[in-house]
Amino acid sequence: MKFSVAARLAYEVRETTVFILNIEAAALRNQKILSETLDLTPAVAVDRYELEGGTRLVRVVVEPGTFEVAYDAEVELAMHDADPSSVGETPVAQLPLDVVPFLNPSRYCQSDRLARFAYREFGALPPGHQRVTAICNWIHDHVDYLSGSSTSETSAYDTMVQRAGVCRDFAHLGIAFCRALAIPSRFASAYAWQLDPPDFHAVFECYLDGAWYLFDPTRKAALQGLVRIGVGRDAADAAFATIYGNAEMTSMAVSIAPLDEVEEEEPTVRAVGIA
Amino acid sequence: MKFSVAARLAYEVRETTVFILNIEAAALRNQKILSETLDLTPAVAVDRYELEGGTRLVRVVVEPGTFEVAYDAEVELAMHDADPSSVGETPVAQLPLDVVPFLNPSRYCQSDRLARFAYREFGALPPGHQRVTAICNWIHDHVDYLSGSSTSETSAYDTMVQRAGVCRDFAHLGIAFCRALAIPSRFASAYAWQLDPPDFHAVFECYLDGAWYLFDPTRKAALQGLVRIGVGRDAADAAFATIYGNAEMTSMAVSIAPLDEVEEEEPTVRAVGIA
Amino acid sequence: MKFSVAARLAYEVRETTVFILNIEAAALRNQKILSETLDLTPAVAVDRYELEGGTRLVRVVVEPGTFEVAYDAEVELAMHDADPSSVGETPVAQLPLDVVPFLNPSRYCQSDRLARFAYREFGALPPGHQRVTAICNWIHDHVDYLSGSSTSETSAYDTMVQRAGVCRDFAHLGIAFCRALAIPSRFASAYAWQLDPPDFHAVFECYLDGAWYLFDPTRKAALQGLVRIGVGRDAADAAFATIYGNAEMTSMAVSIAPLDEVEEEEPTVRAVGIA
Amino acid sequence: MKFSVAARLAYEVRETTVFILNIEAAALRNQKILSETLDLTPAVAVDRYELEGGTRLVRVVVEPGTFEVAYDAEVELAMHDADPSSVGETPVAQLPLDVVPFLNPSRYCQSDRLARFAYREFGALPPGHQRVTAICNWIHDHVDYLSGSSTSETSAYDTMVQRAGVCRDFAHLGIAFCRALAIPSRFASAYAWQLDPPDFHAVFECYLDGAWYLFDPTRKAALQGLVRIGVGRDAADAAFATIYGNAEMTSMAVSIAPLDEVEEEEPTVRAVGIA
Repeated sequence: MKFSVAARLAYEVRETTVFILNIEAAALRNQKILSETLDLTPAVAVDRYELEGGTRLVRVVVEPGTFEVAYDAEVELAMHDADPSSVGETPVAQLPLDVVPFLNPSRYCQSDRLARFAYREFGALPPGHQRVTAICNWIHDHVDYLSGSSTSETSAYDTMVQRAGVCRDFAHLGIAFCRALAIPSRFASAYAWQLDPPDFHAVFECYLDGAWYLFDPTRKAALQGLVRIGVGRDAADAAFATIYGNAEMTSMAVSIAPLDEVEEEEPTVRAVGIA
Repeated sequence: MKFSVAARLAYEVRETTVFILNIEAAALRNQKILSETLDLTPAVAVDRYELEGGTRLVRVVVEPGTFEVAYDAEVELAMHDADPSSVGETPVAQLPLDVVPFLNPSRYCQSDRLARFAYREFGALPPGHQRVTAICNWIHDHVDYLSGSSTSETSAYDTMVQRAGVCRDFAHLGIAFCRALAIPSRFASAYAWQLDPPDFHAVFECYLDGAWYLFDPTRKAALQGLVRIGVGRDAADAAFATIYGNAEMTSMAVSIAPLDEVEEEEPTVRAVGIA
Repeated sequence: MKFSVAARLAYEVRETTVFILNIEAAALRNQKILSETLDLTPAVAVDRYELEGGTRLVRVVVEPGTFEVAYDAEVELAMHDADPSSVGETPVAQLPLDVVPFLNPSRYCQSDRLARFAYREFGALPPGHQRVTAICNWIHDHVDYLSGSSTSETSAYDTMVQRAGVCRDFAHLGIAFCRALAIPSRFASAYAWQLDPPDFHAVFECYLDGAWYLFDPTRKAALQGLVRIGVGRDAADAAFATIYGNAEMTSMAVSIAPLDEVEEEEPTVRAVGIA
Repeated sequence: MKFSVAARLAYEVRETTVFILNIEAAALRNQKILSETLDLTPAVAVDRYELEGGTRLVRVVVEPGTFEVAYDAEVELAMHDADPSSVGETPVAQLPLDVVPFLNPSRYCQSDRLARFAYREFGALPPGHQRVTAICNWIHDHVDYLSGSSTSETSAYDTMVQRAGVCRDFAHLGIAFCRALAIPSRFASAYAWQLDPPDFHAVFECYLDGAWYLFDPTRKAALQGLVRIGVGRDAADAAFATIYGNAEMTSMAVSIAPLDEVEEEEPTVRAVGIA
């Protein structure tokens, strides 16, 4: 399925400032970038880097004044699709060892401290895609999606107590539970089709049966319409803009639209894999 | 019902040390102290004070050497007893205003941060003694009673995430939930009949329909066999010994036994009130 | 010295709501209320209570609509005044036992967890009023006073790390340090002369040499111009309004002015005691 | 300089258990492994993986019974050595972009929450190796090295308040401060010459002037005698053994000795770089 995505960011820059941007669609085997443009005004030199996992960083140094970023891309997704009941967990004894670090706790996902709860609540469920779905259902049912209820410092530990958050908090809690159960799990930022209002979205991915599968405990976006941007341990690794200097964002707009005719959505629940 | 209670504490004191002890049975309307002795070895002068709520503090200054405390008492309890379904909540508009501070969050009971959860989980239940019992049942079912799983720094916030604790953690979580629901709630330390192994116990009390009622989410002791010692905001107010100086506890023994013939326990569940 | 104080609060009440207000000047031996009026619009019945320590609570039940509170008072302060170097600490062995609970940690003042730092930094200083002043100086020098940098959940533990806060955070940190050093300490809200812009202010009090002395680590108000309102363990005990129901504050104004001719301020530093 | 290192671990395994071991010397450009043996008893099949950064993971599946691990190696270190005053910081605008993730906060290093303190205390110091040394000096002077004072859950946030910890806590605090100042920083476990008593040690590394430099705020080991094992975001990435199953460690011994004649130590302070 093909999508066009776009992001428009504007900043008032007050001193020479370094921006590390992470807004371009990730370079993934099943996410093909058909075309893209990144327009910066003023036009400044760009350093680029692609992290392990496909995250693409752009670094620019901007002088004081207005700074505008316009990103447009056409992307084709070829998501892996499976019957959820057929997707099991990979025992730690068989995990690729480069996946093992995604079992470790991270800034916003203290899986070590949530382990007892995760085992009590989800430990007895049959392993696999359906167990992670049960985790997502639990989050959806026990945490309020509430704009403004969390800050950039809020972690899964807090969300577990405070029971409110936004998409990144939902993802962090899902990741923490999964890692506690020895399911490798990572954070993903994305352009999200059907997300309303449009914004950068946050979901998570679990390594199951040899592939990474997508999960969205907010149930706010269509899994088959997620154009991934950054992947990492948690939100600390996937900010759309990290700023070293002094600049204030003055406007932001994000959009995504399908380029194909959209077929009638099938009611069948499918596991959506990404690698 | 009458009980004999006893506590034996021994310390190795290394420099002149102030002890503030809180081991004597509280002076309560329905907890009558028939006789008691406090023997200190060496015999040191004692300062006494009774806090609002009946907690009795003893202060002693002890020189280096061995210090032994022996407390023995006979206590008669005349607990108020009611049909739980008949005990409602007192609306804030009608609470005695001296009870209002027991709605405030405290060191170990961050009711302000647990409010959303408390409302989600218990807000729709019919108010009254049975709602607090539902809270106790939730704690019993969702938190592991596990010796050594918590420290003196563990608060209700932590227990909510970590899901393990001992009697004081269970009480703190119960208090936090109740205060979040506008039910005045306080911490109580006690000699606890049938607690096995014998130890100082921690429970909590809620102000319902004009009286304080006892709750023990650990289900480890008999409510009608609790000889209360200290009452306060939380465990910070009810330590059996606070030490200013340098002393190490070398032994501790606590006991309680009924002085009456114990009747066959009735299977009926009763609300046990204390004032 | 005499002051007139005033508070104006307005709320939009959306359902029957209970307000517990704590805006009246406290009833203290050295704070004499010469006259006062509390006007409520609409005029609703008032329940009153005076807590130990002089805090005066007012409870009203308000029906939906606009609710306005106007408090005016004339207060005469007869503060105790001493040479700071003459005011020592009271050893725990000699503290009045009713003051001992103000050594305990509380919701926002985790003195138990800050003890090592407090001893390292302030433990070797000569005890007394000047040590508490050193604590206030440390807070003033190491924490930024920054509006909006903290929330109602911020505690001394957080402020110690985050190094920014407002008056209540400064007071909480001072209280936590003092309790860690076995100096009884409590929170006070106040009308504060010279505070700019005018607002409810927060300071703290320490029990030294038989009296409570005032401290303001923000250095924003004149100690001899503090008309105290609520006193308690920490801010949890001294909210100017606690609301059970559904109401939104639409405006607030606070003022204080001296009624006497103000003498040239003496440059001498004095300890200001309050009981 | 050449060293022999050894580790002996023994476990009582109670059910089929997966061990992920990270005890082998890392494969680094300036850390040459001359010889090594890993003996497992019973002899079990081994999976190996080398993470980015040189960390070498070994995975084994062990059946119930006794499990013993013996690792021996000879390693030659060719540390980069520089005059500290000549080693500056690399501006973010010039950092290799693969180093940028080491600016992000992690599980135990909440650099986002420590930023204000780091700027207040270290922001005005001249940038470079000497600034990081000043950070290490601050940690050494303000935090007690105290065995048993922290747990596996203790983070830099806690250590900042509690002011006690062990080598991993010291490293975490150093990392958090450096990242807050935009100095890329990572955790390293090591065999540490002169550490007394011998144990696995924890230090940290900063990316300065194009190379990673070593820092040990505990001052307990010789920087030129650190045989690095695991490198990562923080201790979550560098456990010497992660256990999935049920096994208890019954003994552990770690050793390191120089193979060369050790020259008289020069009193000159040098910056020790590692890549």
